[in-house]
Amino acid sequence: MSNKKEQTREMILKTSYPLFAKDGFNKVTMKAVCEASGLSRGGLYSHFSSTKEIFEAILENLNEKDEMNFYKEMAEGMSAPAILDRALSLMEDEMAHSEDSLSLAMYEYAGNISKESMDKFNQIGEKKWTDLIEYGMKRNEFKKVDTVEIVNVIMYAYQGVRMWSRIVTMSPEVFASIIKHIRSALLKEE
Amino acid sequence: MSNKKEQTREMILKTSYPLFAKDGFNKVTMKAVCEASGLSRGGLYSHFSSTKEIFEAILENLNEKDEMNFYKEMAEGMSAPAILDRALSLMEDEMAHSEDSLSLAMYEYAGNISKESMDKFNQIGEKKWTDLIEYGMKRNEFKKVDTVEIVNVIMYAYQGVRMWSRIVTMSPEVFASIIKHIRSALLKEE
Repeated sequence: MSNKKEQTREMILKTSYPLFAKDGFNKVTMKAVCEASGLSRGGLYSHFSSTKEIFEAILENLNEKDEMNFYKEMAEGMSAPAILDRALSLMEDEMAHSEDSLSLAMYEYAGNISKESMDKFNQIGEKKWTDLIEYGMKRNEFKKVDTVEIVNVIMYAYQGVRMWSRIVTMSPEVFASIIKHIRSALLKEE
Repeated sequence: MSNKKEQTREMILKTSYPLFAKDGFNKVTMKAVCEASGLSRGGLYSHFSSTKEIFEAILENLNEKDEMNFYKEMAEGMSAPAILDRALSLMEDEMAHSEDSLSLAMYEYAGNISKESMDKFNQIGEKKWTDLIEYGMKRNEFKKVDTVEIVNVIMYAYQGVRMWSRIVTMSPEVFASIIKHIRSALLKEE
């Protein structure tokens, strides 16, 4: 892909992200993406043929970036607590910005696709956290824990907060308490 | 309220519950409730004037029933671990039946009302769990924990599972692992 084409593609993803975060998946139209990106209908369609394609490209980007960080850091031999801290601080920041959350959009999007595609997405998150916890235990930097249990607590407490923070008033103490819980479940001394 | 009137009211709530669980809040119409309950339009409207009223009555019922159980058991001096086990087993059962979950409906409903009303709902859950944990610590049956932290983990891990189990394949091991985590966070010996 030429550099210019790639740049336009990235710009489309960047300008349509807030539309999905604000309105969910179903309400966003290609017309709205045209307006947000300043592209003509023809310009937009030369990159993406539907909001589904755009949304999938956004999810893929997010996933890849996050996954890459974990594996890159492990490959570099960074300590497990340091990788955990980086990931949890990102997580806390995301929880604090419910207006940027794609939870509702993902929920609606899931209604339009097969369960298998959502499973794939979920498994990437599961695998990433499982591998980090195994890495930390092998290096003797994390407590010996039930990996599956902690991975599920991390993933679903996070998703619960992301969803509910959009519909109830949630103080930063809630985010901090979830982060603290995960840290103390894994780290040997606090 | 006469017994007959009360019975019809309960029947309306019972027959409309699965509609909200299946379709969310926005898609359910008074017409659909008429059909499900077998009532005429006039019959239904003599009890409820909108799906919002019906849904609120359902939420109130659920909340009251659950809250009542906690406080009744504490007032009777039941042991904290026994109350916890009863509550967690109910929770695990609910997680296993994502088709009965009102999560999507609550999410959509929240878009139609003030954040304060949802806050009230959330605070009932928070208070109930907080009181149980304090009760268990006072009786020396629970570990000394950070109550706010554990309450948040319980509430949001549960909500995360309730939401996500509708869009990804979730095995009973996931539910069991969340329950196990909560138990071992609170109980002194396993």
